[in-house]
Amino acid sequence: MSEKKKIAVVLSGNGVYDGSEIHEATLTLLSIARQGATYELFAPDINQAHVINHLTGEEMPETRNVLVESARIARGKIANLKAYKASQFDALVFPGGFGAAKNLCNFAFEGPNCTVNKDVEEAIRETVEAGKPIGALCIAPAVITRILKDVNVTIGNDSGTAGAIEKMGGTHTNATHGEVVFDPKYKIYTTPCYMLEASIDQIADGTDNIIQAILQSL
Amino acid sequence: MSEKKKIAVVLSGNGVYDGSEIHEATLTLLSIARQGATYELFAPDINQAHVINHLTGEEMPETRNVLVESARIARGKIANLKAYKASQFDALVFPGGFGAAKNLCNFAFEGPNCTVNKDVEEAIRETVEAGKPIGALCIAPAVITRILKDVNVTIGNDSGTAGAIEKMGGTHTNATHGEVVFDPKYKIYTTPCYMLEASIDQIADGTDNIIQAILQSL
Repeated sequence: MSEKKKIAVVLSGNGVYDGSEIHEATLTLLSIARQGATYELFAPDINQAHVINHLTGEEMPETRNVLVESARIARGKIANLKAYKASQFDALVFPGGFGAAKNLCNFAFEGPNCTVNKDVEEAIRETVEAGKPIGALCIAPAVITRILKDVNVTIGNDSGTAGAIEKMGGTHTNATHGEVVFDPKYKIYTTPCYMLEASIDQIADGTDNIIQAILQSL
Repeated sequence: MSEKKKIAVVLSGNGVYDGSEIHEATLTLLSIARQGATYELFAPDINQAHVINHLTGEEMPETRNVLVESARIARGKIANLKAYKASQFDALVFPGGFGAAKNLCNFAFEGPNCTVNKDVEEAIRETVEAGKPIGALCIAPAVITRILKDVNVTIGNDSGTAGAIEKMGGTHTNATHGEVVFDPKYKIYTTPCYMLEASIDQIADGTDNIIQAILQSL
């Protein structure tokens, strides 16, 4: 029997409005496990851009660390993203949530002129250079596009966000629930998840499909 | 077509060591949605017993609110447990995580002499009196047992915890991954989840099976 494929998953906190979207992150892990692969989790060791009260939507006067909060989704088993080496994995996946656009980069605040966290940028560049696939869910394709520029991705069908993707040099392809857009040049897989109004089972369809597409390509 | 069944899910924070176990909570919601039912989320509006850094396992000098943190798993759509009415739901489910044993009751600190949060107690009593089923995952059966006493449950196979269940008047039945123990007197369904060393797909088997057993009973 061939060895199990191993996927690195990068979290950006723990909660849709200031971190990783919890359903997307959890269901990515489930899709990997149910399809016979294994995963390891990473997050940058930085403070969150801010902390949002998820009941009221208001900012809280607190500071939380992305790696420490991501560890809640990871049940403690997570490493600093600096330790990621593309050579040790078969693929790299970014679940969504505002954390991807607030902590991994500042797209949520700066739009197409955003800057990307150095460790995130290095992980993406190293994986592409190694010829290995990257998956990005929900708003996470914005991070990928800011680094790679001429890449074809989907963030669903939101015209404002799609326009920002194109301003960064990308091509945007509209997609609906569970659909996966593939860019063959860079081996980038994207799917909209909660960038569309979605139920949790539609998110699971999205994570199942993107992980299946990635694993089948290996 | 008959109306969709509606299940109330009670969270206890957001993270295995001081709140709801995130995989168990998320996968409970997925199992409900994939099996054609709907859910609403509730949590008590109280402070957590404490806050644990999930990277180091150490206590943090912070205060967090159970309802506010649970709202992260709920994507903001969650109500104060005081608003729960058994008459509006077909079943009540408690995912696990230490939050069930630290916030919903204080079993993690006091063992079999623990006290249960008043809103949690009322929700359980009202649901049993209405003749409706209750599901409890992982360590959450401890809460149920403290209220109902002579109930048959599983928390997996940990002899210490099983002994505490029996001291509270319950009967403990050992169970393995995905197995559901049913108590016909009170209509209580329990499954071990992360009370056993488990992978995330085994947790999904557990939530699929317990939700299926509950829905088939309706």
